[in-house]
Amino acid sequence: MTVALLLKPDKPEAVALARELCALLSSRGVEALVAGAPPEAAADLAPARLVDESALGEPRLLVVLGGDGTLLHGADLVADAGVPILGINLGNLGFLTSCPPELGRATLELALDGRLPYERRMRLRVELSRASGERVARIGCNDAVISQGALARLIEFDASLDGAAIATYRADGLIIATPTGSTAYSLAAGGPILTPSVEGLVLTPICPHTLTNRPVVVPAASRVRVNIGEAAQHARLTVDGQWSADLDPGDAIEVHAANRPLLLHRPADTSYFEILRAKLHWGERVGHDDRATSRAPSR
Amino acid sequence: MTVALLLKPDKPEAVALARELCALLSSRGVEALVAGAPPEAAADLAPARLVDESALGEPRLLVVLGGDGTLLHGADLVADAGVPILGINLGNLGFLTSCPPELGRATLELALDGRLPYERRMRLRVELSRASGERVARIGCNDAVISQGALARLIEFDASLDGAAIATYRADGLIIATPTGSTAYSLAAGGPILTPSVEGLVLTPICPHTLTNRPVVVPAASRVRVNIGEAAQHARLTVDGQWSADLDPGDAIEVHAANRPLLLHRPADTSYFEILRAKLHWGERVGHDDRATSRAPSR
Amino acid sequence: MTVALLLKPDKPEAVALARELCALLSSRGVEALVAGAPPEAAADLAPARLVDESALGEPRLLVVLGGDGTLLHGADLVADAGVPILGINLGNLGFLTSCPPELGRATLELALDGRLPYERRMRLRVELSRASGERVARIGCNDAVISQGALARLIEFDASLDGAAIATYRADGLIIATPTGSTAYSLAAGGPILTPSVEGLVLTPICPHTLTNRPVVVPAASRVRVNIGEAAQHARLTVDGQWSADLDPGDAIEVHAANRPLLLHRPADTSYFEILRAKLHWGERVGHDDRATSRAPSR
Amino acid sequence: MTVALLLKPDKPEAVALARELCALLSSRGVEALVAGAPPEAAADLAPARLVDESALGEPRLLVVLGGDGTLLHGADLVADAGVPILGINLGNLGFLTSCPPELGRATLELALDGRLPYERRMRLRVELSRASGERVARIGCNDAVISQGALARLIEFDASLDGAAIATYRADGLIIATPTGSTAYSLAAGGPILTPSVEGLVLTPICPHTLTNRPVVVPAASRVRVNIGEAAQHARLTVDGQWSADLDPGDAIEVHAANRPLLLHRPADTSYFEILRAKLHWGERVGHDDRATSRAPSR
Repeated sequence: MTVALLLKPDKPEAVALARELCALLSSRGVEALVAGAPPEAAADLAPARLVDESALGEPRLLVVLGGDGTLLHGADLVADAGVPILGINLGNLGFLTSCPPELGRATLELALDGRLPYERRMRLRVELSRASGERVARIGCNDAVISQGALARLIEFDASLDGAAIATYRADGLIIATPTGSTAYSLAAGGPILTPSVEGLVLTPICPHTLTNRPVVVPAASRVRVNIGEAAQHARLTVDGQWSADLDPGDAIEVHAANRPLLLHRPADTSYFEILRAKLHWGERVGHDDRATSRAPSR
Repeated sequence: MTVALLLKPDKPEAVALARELCALLSSRGVEALVAGAPPEAAADLAPARLVDESALGEPRLLVVLGGDGTLLHGADLVADAGVPILGINLGNLGFLTSCPPELGRATLELALDGRLPYERRMRLRVELSRASGERVARIGCNDAVISQGALARLIEFDASLDGAAIATYRADGLIIATPTGSTAYSLAAGGPILTPSVEGLVLTPICPHTLTNRPVVVPAASRVRVNIGEAAQHARLTVDGQWSADLDPGDAIEVHAANRPLLLHRPADTSYFEILRAKLHWGERVGHDDRATSRAPSR
Repeated sequence: MTVALLLKPDKPEAVALARELCALLSSRGVEALVAGAPPEAAADLAPARLVDESALGEPRLLVVLGGDGTLLHGADLVADAGVPILGINLGNLGFLTSCPPELGRATLELALDGRLPYERRMRLRVELSRASGERVARIGCNDAVISQGALARLIEFDASLDGAAIATYRADGLIIATPTGSTAYSLAAGGPILTPSVEGLVLTPICPHTLTNRPVVVPAASRVRVNIGEAAQHARLTVDGQWSADLDPGDAIEVHAANRPLLLHRPADTSYFEILRAKLHWGERVGHDDRATSRAPSR
Repeated sequence: MTVALLLKPDKPEAVALARELCALLSSRGVEALVAGAPPEAAADLAPARLVDESALGEPRLLVVLGGDGTLLHGADLVADAGVPILGINLGNLGFLTSCPPELGRATLELALDGRLPYERRMRLRVELSRASGERVARIGCNDAVISQGALARLIEFDASLDGAAIATYRADGLIIATPTGSTAYSLAAGGPILTPSVEGLVLTPICPHTLTNRPVVVPAASRVRVNIGEAAQHARLTVDGQWSADLDPGDAIEVHAANRPLLLHRPADTSYFEILRAKLHWGERVGHDDRATSRAPSR
């Protein structure tokens, strides 16, 4: 049995926490691989072996020490192999890295004992079919973003759902997000929150010209297709903020739920809405009762 | 075999269309019941019988002549019995009454022949548990709305999802909508559009004080519970705009997907997004290219 | 020279603070009138005299001890006479009552010495012209709200600006707000923030059916007129949440900047945007950098 | 007396219309200069002279034949000299080019006779102060946009108003718009509409991370300053979509009302809100009454 650790680069606190976790793994006779640590940390982390992230293989568990960005990167490396991921943040609660560092050791023990629950988070499969015939596929946990590229021009594209035209968009772009990604860029662009177990994708336009083009939630089983118009000379596709490609007129992007979900360990006692509260001031009371004054015919 | 017709009251064009449809039904030997027609139309519509809407029973098919409001009312009468509904609008396309009057006869023939497809639209079950112990249950196609009542006071209430606290809302109200209802009041309050086959409900706050309280989409299988706070002295619950009740402090409302869906006939060649385009100017191009000027470094 | 105090009713801490301020006024030989205090506090507050709020007259200064609702009520009593108002909150910062209680005494001294600056806040004059010929005028600091009345029906009305048609609204209502009121109900309904010195009013529709009906900012010098349509059987007009009237079909409401502004004392070192930050979490950083992940092609 | 014409390039219909207008000018003994016409049109347009747009000088009137983008470009050429501009669109109504081509000749005659009214539209002055000490100033009619540059990274910047901190933004960008520009990009990003005579600027964030960062309207007389943070490595400044510059960490942008307004001729009988209706479906009724169904406890 092998456990892999992925560290956010250039973070001494990640190395310190990794040392503690590697000691635990060693004491339980579990082999450990560590990616993202500086070479000089090798002695400290031994007997864990420092490897390149491309050599993480298919461990029984991936532990990410960093933020949501690091976890998305880790998911990109191993999620397709069905490896569950435990995200330990380095001091700031993340949407995905919800385990605080001081609980890292205890939470890892629960995971090793098979007593730490995990959620199945839908991922999306993004297939870019170029006008040239080339095809590229990517898997994302959060979102596929079609946006204007190098110049600040708005772009035009058609979107369809299982072959039926949704609309022609003239906008800064379009975000196609999973429930997990609904609290990231899509939320900033005006999209709704989808709780993790909703079987849906949300299509959120970025600054659409057509004021009636509101966010649309579609079933996860459907296929969303975006055709890049002739005028969209500088469009770009980005998946999870981890990978991007320039788009050319005539290119098409197809998005649907991926076959394999992200297996995301979560400390047992964290609730989804509590994380929203901590991250977004979600539902927090602001000011006090008197803010209601203009609605209440009394004082 | 019996077919029932429900007419929007006080609409002569509904009676005229009903005459045409009753003649068709009679010519095919199908018994017809008509609710909503004025008594003086009885001779015109014979052999169809004029009945009170409470006497529609469980026909094989309910044909609604009117708008979406009339169809929601008809669904309230028969949908629980699994009766499919065909909505024929009286000149203005509806979200639910998408068959234009000139196609009414032909579409009814298709329905009688079993060749008209229908969609299963999720409905919601709303259970009001009063502090007094009383319980009332209602079924809706569109939405359950908790809102301020007679006075223009904002209200405060807690919402939870399968027992986990979502938030304490201070708002004008909360809309809990099905995909079908997502294009009605929820949309006006800033909610997203859910295409009809999404297995979800959307919770859209009405003018929330807390700016971070964005619309939330939850799985249809979950149970949403709203507890009316002590300060909410004038709250009200409305289901589909068809039924309403005043709420008292301590009352609770529980909402989840109903067991029986609405069976909604739709002309074969109408697409969901085309109806959006017709009803909402959805995705329609506004003005022309020059509106893009402030984004495009060219002329 | 007379200074008046207006207390939020049923708040013991208001009485305690009033005692301290009355002692200061007495020591400086300033006559004090107190409204809103319970009769049993008379001895404690002497030589200040307890009066009914209608007997406050035209003091040199009105000190409000309470929240924004109490201050709006006080403004309704004296602002037309050009009386400056100092709002001292009872523990929670208000948009208008920005002086904390512990600085109340020192701030009052500055005001008595003529060394406390004040802002001129535009108010609005609301004139209701009834179909019956009756005319009623009200002055407000925050907003005039036209909304649905007792029943949860949406209402329809026309609005015009200096005689030119703006639009026919079908909505839950319309808020016409001053810059001061822009952070109250209008903000919850999706309106922009107007800083206090903007010479404008904002018209914010409440849940408009027409998705393109966005908030509109108009010059303060213009006259906004709203004509209640024939179908709006249950509309209501509310000014500052302090006064309301049922509206009938054919009624008209005209709103423009009032001749006399609100004179609002503010502690010298409070900034407008700091109050926004405290009250609305305005511009506060949420979560941490990793929330940016879906936009940043790196980790 | 000289009148200048500026044509949208590569539009044969612009040349055809220019011929008609040049004939009118010639018949009235008015000298005409034409920019933007292809060389082969010279004979057709004579005695009007074809010139480069940089040689338009300070005519008594500039007539723009094209769309709003062409008019913004023309304003960039002559508005600083106080030259009034008449915009004739080529078939599609523009916000600024509101004269239809078939009324072009008659409207030009009114202008020559001094009988065509014009509006004074506030413009903004944008001054870029580079960390290097370089200073660049630009005048715009619509907006100054600070946005992410070549890569799809969100940017971070501070904004202040007359020296007082507004907020630290983490967003895709910020739009600072005049009333004229409020219906362009700012509207797409969620900003309010400012009618042309409002003395204000609107600051509309583009996809802000902080959900409470709502659009803010500030007085036109104030100075808005944006400081580009150290992390904003790929930011860009664009004015009216006509001119743009890459921004570096440490750069600052200051925006305030320009001294000279745009003088915009408008056909006498076009109303501002009518143009909104034509361009944005503003306030247009969608669907019919039944869309209200979920709010109306009746059918």
